[in-house]
Amino acid sequence: VNVITLAVQDLERSLAFYRDGLGFATKGILAADVRDPVSGAAGALALFTLNGGLMLALYPRADMAKDAKVNDTGPNSVEFSLGYLVGSRAEVDGLLRLAVKAGGRASESPRERPWGIYSGYFSDPDGHLWEIIWNPAMPVQS
Amino acid sequence: VNVITLAVQDLERSLAFYRDGLGFATKGILAADVRDPVSGAAGALALFTLNGGLMLALYPRADMAKDAKVNDTGPNSVEFSLGYLVGSRAEVDGLLRLAVKAGGRASESPRERPWGIYSGYFSDPDGHLWEIIWNPAMPVQS
Repeated sequence: VNVITLAVQDLERSLAFYRDGLGFATKGILAADVRDPVSGAAGALALFTLNGGLMLALYPRADMAKDAKVNDTGPNSVEFSLGYLVGSRAEVDGLLRLAVKAGGRASESPRERPWGIYSGYFSDPDGHLWEIIWNPAMPVQS
Repeated sequence: VNVITLAVQDLERSLAFYRDGLGFATKGILAADVRDPVSGAAGALALFTLNGGLMLALYPRADMAKDAKVNDTGPNSVEFSLGYLVGSRAEVDGLLRLAVKAGGRASESPRERPWGIYSGYFSDPDGHLWEIIWNPAMPVQS
């Protein structure tokens, strides 16, 4: 996987959440002047480069539906989650606080889970789930 | 992002699709004997290691809903897509054929898109979208 594309309701709102709220580096909205005559999808998206060259893209859900030729049957948080490993319990707590301050939603406090991790979830403005994880068996650099 | 977790209806079916159909390496279903007494979520999941150490996890949607404390409002393909860059048009065509043979669904033939790529989508047994992309401006090793 080279690109994770998140479908968003409002590109500007989601860009603000990830760029201003979480501090992800980006050049902002790209390809705003491109439209696909075949599908009708617009090209405008925002791109972030994450760890290891992985790219995170934000793309309007109406355009994703057109581009992929699938129907949008309404938002649902339970399709996927993005897991981010950090180096300590305190980092889990801190990142979740940052996400909530930025406008994300946490449904409970982070906690120990019986599969050997300490973690908590937040959802972004579109309900997309992120799990911030400290796994003592998988040390990462902070 | 270290882990992309896909919510699945049937763990065995999705494991077969990714392992047997697409050829992703995995140790099969892990943590089948673990359950979280707090949320009621089971631990059973399948893990694949992708490029750059990125992990892909398959996890039952009912358990994801419990673990993240969110409601499952019904499947929807238009939440995210996973983009995979390949080295040529022929590789796009070949991977899409493989995915369809494995039980995936392609809504149209791959084609040129006006943002400089040749690509096609398939959806996995749960409707999760993958876009296989050849981008001449981003050469990758085949």
